[in-house]
Amino acid sequence: MKHFIQLNDIENMDRFLEGIHQLKQSPLAHQHLGANKTLGMLFFNPSLRTRLSTQKAAQQLGMHSMVMNFTGEGWKLEFEDGVIMTGNAAEHIREAAAVVSQYFDVLAVRAFASLEDKEKDLAETVIKGFQDYGSIPVMNLESATAHPLQALADAVTLQEFQKVKRPKVVLSWAPHPRALPHAVANSFVKMMHYLEVDFSIAHPKGYALNPKLTQGIPIANDQEAAFENADFIYTKNWSAFDAYGTQPPVGQDWQITAAKMQATNNAYFMHCLPVRRNVVVEAKVLDSPQSLVIAQANNRTYAAQAVLKTLLEHAT
Amino acid sequence: MKHFIQLNDIENMDRFLEGIHQLKQSPLAHQHLGANKTLGMLFFNPSLRTRLSTQKAAQQLGMHSMVMNFTGEGWKLEFEDGVIMTGNAAEHIREAAAVVSQYFDVLAVRAFASLEDKEKDLAETVIKGFQDYGSIPVMNLESATAHPLQALADAVTLQEFQKVKRPKVVLSWAPHPRALPHAVANSFVKMMHYLEVDFSIAHPKGYALNPKLTQGIPIANDQEAAFENADFIYTKNWSAFDAYGTQPPVGQDWQITAAKMQATNNAYFMHCLPVRRNVVVEAKVLDSPQSLVIAQANNRTYAAQAVLKTLLEHAT
Amino acid sequence: MKHFIQLNDIENMDRFLEGIHQLKQSPLAHQHLGANKTLGMLFFNPSLRTRLSTQKAAQQLGMHSMVMNFTGEGWKLEFEDGVIMTGNAAEHIREAAAVVSQYFDVLAVRAFASLEDKEKDLAETVIKGFQDYGSIPVMNLESATAHPLQALADAVTLQEFQKVKRPKVVLSWAPHPRALPHAVANSFVKMMHYLEVDFSIAHPKGYALNPKLTQGIPIANDQEAAFENADFIYTKNWSAFDAYGTQPPVGQDWQITAAKMQATNNAYFMHCLPVRRNVVVEAKVLDSPQSLVIAQANNRTYAAQAVLKTLLEHAT
Repeated sequence: MKHFIQLNDIENMDRFLEGIHQLKQSPLAHQHLGANKTLGMLFFNPSLRTRLSTQKAAQQLGMHSMVMNFTGEGWKLEFEDGVIMTGNAAEHIREAAAVVSQYFDVLAVRAFASLEDKEKDLAETVIKGFQDYGSIPVMNLESATAHPLQALADAVTLQEFQKVKRPKVVLSWAPHPRALPHAVANSFVKMMHYLEVDFSIAHPKGYALNPKLTQGIPIANDQEAAFENADFIYTKNWSAFDAYGTQPPVGQDWQITAAKMQATNNAYFMHCLPVRRNVVVEAKVLDSPQSLVIAQANNRTYAAQAVLKTLLEHAT
Repeated sequence: MKHFIQLNDIENMDRFLEGIHQLKQSPLAHQHLGANKTLGMLFFNPSLRTRLSTQKAAQQLGMHSMVMNFTGEGWKLEFEDGVIMTGNAAEHIREAAAVVSQYFDVLAVRAFASLEDKEKDLAETVIKGFQDYGSIPVMNLESATAHPLQALADAVTLQEFQKVKRPKVVLSWAPHPRALPHAVANSFVKMMHYLEVDFSIAHPKGYALNPKLTQGIPIANDQEAAFENADFIYTKNWSAFDAYGTQPPVGQDWQITAAKMQATNNAYFMHCLPVRRNVVVEAKVLDSPQSLVIAQANNRTYAAQAVLKTLLEHAT
Repeated sequence: MKHFIQLNDIENMDRFLEGIHQLKQSPLAHQHLGANKTLGMLFFNPSLRTRLSTQKAAQQLGMHSMVMNFTGEGWKLEFEDGVIMTGNAAEHIREAAAVVSQYFDVLAVRAFASLEDKEKDLAETVIKGFQDYGSIPVMNLESATAHPLQALADAVTLQEFQKVKRPKVVLSWAPHPRALPHAVANSFVKMMHYLEVDFSIAHPKGYALNPKLTQGIPIANDQEAAFENADFIYTKNWSAFDAYGTQPPVGQDWQITAAKMQATNNAYFMHCLPVRRNVVVEAKVLDSPQSLVIAQANNRTYAAQAVLKTLLEHAT
């Protein structure tokens, strides 16, 4: 693995997930691997879990980390070629990526989808820019279309709590006041291909994800029916992919409620956080013993640590 | 000591203050105590002294620290239960506290009083939230009603400079252009109960502190009279507690001046900083050898180190 | 060297530059020098290269670093004496500098020129304030009139790439949409006095630098003529010094183009970055093998490391 941009950068997913479980058992077992190495963390969007768990992961590998918030501490970057840079952007990704590559050993980047320019978002302009013009391994801390660290943590959590060999997993859309990106849902969908699960997606009409990713996966517009016999309900809001970035009106209430959870096979509730209580999901569900959201967040550390470990091992 | 929220979390104040003096002598004597431990520092308000001295304290114990500014790097948290979270807050304290507890060993939190909602401020909603929903020791970096780290540093400074067994200490209100919280004054008042001092408070009418805290303490509305024979003048502005958060008009000038200091027993001048020169106190007083403000700030490091040391020792 | 504010704080420039080359060969050779020492980095302006390369430098010396952004994390400081502080500034430099000196071993400060008050900028109010009222070595991360770390990196880069004993070096003004400070140009001009170079400056009328600095240096208002036979073109925009901080209209196009570079002796192109492509310089020039901008940025680390090393050695 040279870069960690998407889940398919991982060569052997089974073995990789097993490695995460092992790191969770012995987080300090590889403390010399990162000695005198530095992780550069560049944020173009806010972050809580991702930043802290990744810094913790670096630390447990004996690695230094430096955090740079581009909004607030730095300046706007230009990602397009050929532009006459008289606007807001003070520096081009070509220089920025090449320069910071000289100060770090691994470069971690968070840059959300704009939800305004579908083509640019799909092209992953920002993280690709660091990959193309940088000279060190790049690690995805959530990009326009993918959040693979989250999917790794989700897979490990699912493995920790699954009771049957082939659990029924439902990814359900849920309401949210603001238009949100598709990254978490996309990576979760991708991850489900690697696990032995009975997987389906439930979302209102108008909220289909990128059809390239969901090909072959059962999709329901009836949330209630989809929940029947589910072992895991993974919940996430996303905006429309077709009418890109919009929020088409939804006929019925898609909030995850305790009543809806009762129709499942006593399913676990999963969400990547942050989550809006009583909007996305009823508080009662989050506060029930079936909620795995805190466990998922904990596994973020070991997912990030496994990625960093692999990138460091590959580099040496 | 499981948490450090208020001064009365400290079991034996005499011994604790003695411990701070000792750490000042040998700040690196416990460098292995914090090995592979992490201090998470969450800021809901700006900080200079508190952040830097506490990071320094962690470092001297061999502990990592991570700083997170919620305004700027993160998002707004919701602290009330039962809310339908369609507003500005993207995450609830229940999730935030439980999640970050998994990344850190000690959690330090700064969250000032709103000065708008007296009940919420007195309930210490923010720091209590981290205590209630987190799973690790919480350390107060100034909350709505208390700044116990400052009071510890103040006590140690007072001990370093006192010339008589029972010095006369006056806490004097002073003017300020903005309405300020009561945290520093509250904790100083509480601390005075632990020390052998002749303590009184001077403030203009309308500026009484929380009467629960000042019970039994002599209070003067005449600054000049209060200063007579004082050995230490501790100065701080605060807004009204009764007409909560307001700034009732003040008849005379309460600025601490060199002339007023002359009426004392060559008293030392103390202030927690930041201080507005020639508003709160005359520049001449700050620049005089009697000013202890820089020494107070220095002792913040050792106060924080003693608290961290105790929390780490209790946790193991 | 007690402080590092200007290039002339360096006692023996030849030896100092040689030291930078050596640190680049063995960056980890002095890892014990910084043990239990802390670099405090205070930013009054945004920073990318300077912050990261200086943190890296500290790290390579085994030194801790703490970053504080005054816009965002702290509050406004007052630098003038005698002011009645009822305005925006919550703390005076006298207190701030004395306080933070107690938490750090070396203090690094970035504070750009205001370009509004020439006298104050020339007086270096901010960095001088930390020097005057602090009690530890102060390191310039770009001040109102100087960016000596950049000049050190530039000199080392020039030495690495020079092909003749006395190369022809031209400092050329170039266009920019915003009014910029003189710090980089000033320090580059100063540095040229230390090197064996044939140095000249080219700028449009109205853009003369501080005449005290450029005395004796050939100055051309004809860019094309100046470029003839040049071995290095160092490019930078700056605003007028005479009509301080303004941008007088420029008759012809001063952008550095591939065509103009062809008139040189296959010159190397240098710039401190960030650079606006196709405004300051044609993209083609930046992407050519003659561009040294990435190499310059890399040498920032070793320049900062040499400065820190000297300050630490002097302090012990």
